[in-house]
Amino acid sequence: MSAPTTPVQLGAGPAVLAFDVGGTDTKATLVDATGALLDTVRVPTPLSLDGTGDAVLAQIEALANRFRTAHPTVDIQAAGLIVPGLVDDENGIGVFSENIGWENVPFRDLLSERLGVPVFFTHDVRAAGAAEYALGGAGQYSDVLVVVIGTGIAGAVFINGVPYSAHGYAGEIGHSVVDPGGVECACGGRGCLEAIGSAGAISRLYRAASGDGDPADNAIGAREVLERAQAGDFRAQKIWTEATDAIGQVLAQCVALLAPEAIVLGGGLAQAGPALFDPVEKRMNSFLTFHRRPVLLPATVGENAGVVGAALGARRLVPNVASPVAL
Amino acid sequence: MSAPTTPVQLGAGPAVLAFDVGGTDTKATLVDATGALLDTVRVPTPLSLDGTGDAVLAQIEALANRFRTAHPTVDIQAAGLIVPGLVDDENGIGVFSENIGWENVPFRDLLSERLGVPVFFTHDVRAAGAAEYALGGAGQYSDVLVVVIGTGIAGAVFINGVPYSAHGYAGEIGHSVVDPGGVECACGGRGCLEAIGSAGAISRLYRAASGDGDPADNAIGAREVLERAQAGDFRAQKIWTEATDAIGQVLAQCVALLAPEAIVLGGGLAQAGPALFDPVEKRMNSFLTFHRRPVLLPATVGENAGVVGAALGARRLVPNVASPVAL
Repeated sequence: MSAPTTPVQLGAGPAVLAFDVGGTDTKATLVDATGALLDTVRVPTPLSLDGTGDAVLAQIEALANRFRTAHPTVDIQAAGLIVPGLVDDENGIGVFSENIGWENVPFRDLLSERLGVPVFFTHDVRAAGAAEYALGGAGQYSDVLVVVIGTGIAGAVFINGVPYSAHGYAGEIGHSVVDPGGVECACGGRGCLEAIGSAGAISRLYRAASGDGDPADNAIGAREVLERAQAGDFRAQKIWTEATDAIGQVLAQCVALLAPEAIVLGGGLAQAGPALFDPVEKRMNSFLTFHRRPVLLPATVGENAGVVGAALGARRLVPNVASPVAL
Repeated sequence: MSAPTTPVQLGAGPAVLAFDVGGTDTKATLVDATGALLDTVRVPTPLSLDGTGDAVLAQIEALANRFRTAHPTVDIQAAGLIVPGLVDDENGIGVFSENIGWENVPFRDLLSERLGVPVFFTHDVRAAGAAEYALGGAGQYSDVLVVVIGTGIAGAVFINGVPYSAHGYAGEIGHSVVDPGGVECACGGRGCLEAIGSAGAISRLYRAASGDGDPADNAIGAREVLERAQAGDFRAQKIWTEATDAIGQVLAQCVALLAPEAIVLGGGLAQAGPALFDPVEKRMNSFLTFHRRPVLLPATVGENAGVVGAALGARRLVPNVASPVAL
């Protein structure tokens, strides 16, 4: 296993395990009673070809056993598990993951049986959003939208300080239409925000537009598209501008409906800093008149936001522990 | 005063007064202990040229006195007041009304002093939404969006059965952008839903497009535009289709973010029935893939929804009275 990572400000509390099952890798960590991420490991996520999620559960159980063996003095009292796709928090069910391959798996109860501790279960973006809300810059606000922009785009909604998931269907602003009849989206729709403004889309659209047969373009990511735009590549500039325009437009629509006091932008694309935030904020504000203008904040918890959110939720399952935020 | 109107199913409870201050008229009613609208009156709304709202408050006090004189045996225990514009429910303040002319008026406390009873105060569309939610077809759902489409467009958001107002800024989907850079909106923006899909916009856009100098067009409303569209007028068909497309698109965006279980459409335009609901639902669904599809319901409380919502809120201020819905 890897060396301990830099401690996140989780604070003192029960020791818990946290698992972030991603489309490619699974990240697992042991949070000790001081709130440090004592031991963090990343392993490839096994496909669940039979649709049951058993391969994922078996891997998590094995990881938990390794943590217990490696840290026999740590008293693990609960675990947090987060997954992508469509997730029913209320009932603890992974409803659907096309990428990893499961359908209607009662992950919460199955993992609790395997590990012998209570399990907190939610969607990866909602967990990351909860971590940002609890530990990042938006904690002073009641009504907050946390948006994670990476391969895809999804949001976590907090209303009066409480997460709102609508049985897993809320916050799917990546699949809010920006360009009716536009470019195809992985969801089956057309012109969704995710198909225009995600890091994945920026990379894909640039490669599709290049057409000059340069094999180096096959590996180009959103970061390189931005670098090329900044170096004067008009094609890259157009794709970057269309992406930030689309993000700003959808955020303005979220403001009209929900009027969040703060919007936090995280995920890989937020690493672009002002090159993302400035045009997005300008575009968003261009659509706002009497509306309540939200503060636009960068995510601060960083790449461990998912497991940190899972750990926060897990800690809340241990009796007599107050969580800094409802999960 | 007018004859008693048809009783609405408010049910038994304390007798209350309800006032719906509109941009043109003010509607006032006395709800008796059986829940009947015992006496309903409509008078022109006075302009508040000095920005204080005093003219409006004086008129309401006079109306209250008339009700008390006309119905001396009715024991009025509270009042409900609803107004348009920007309204801070939490603090009882009419923040801004451009049409009637006030700014930061503490209506709730001022009216309570004048009438000597507790006053419930909210936004007209949120009150109408609450009435629809309490007494209409969406009462079985937790997460509901009520949209009122008339001269303008606004929505009332219910999250887990509780209204969400964001200090008056939530639900403003009339000012969600549909066509960036498009037609001017009264709010100062461009391409807002209200500038394309409201009854006011349909009428205005048709008159602007007519250009044939027919003076009869000056009075044409959305109803006539629909009639002409159904009779084969291509210009009317185009405007009606663009309106229903815009409404369906914004509803789909609301679904992506909030995933309401039901969306209720009310207001004058909803009188169009299937000519509105069918194309709006088709358009909305065209943007939905994995999303939770909401039930689309017509408003049923009707033209009195505002005062009924105000009365429901007023009744809740009387001790030991349970309201069928949180207000």
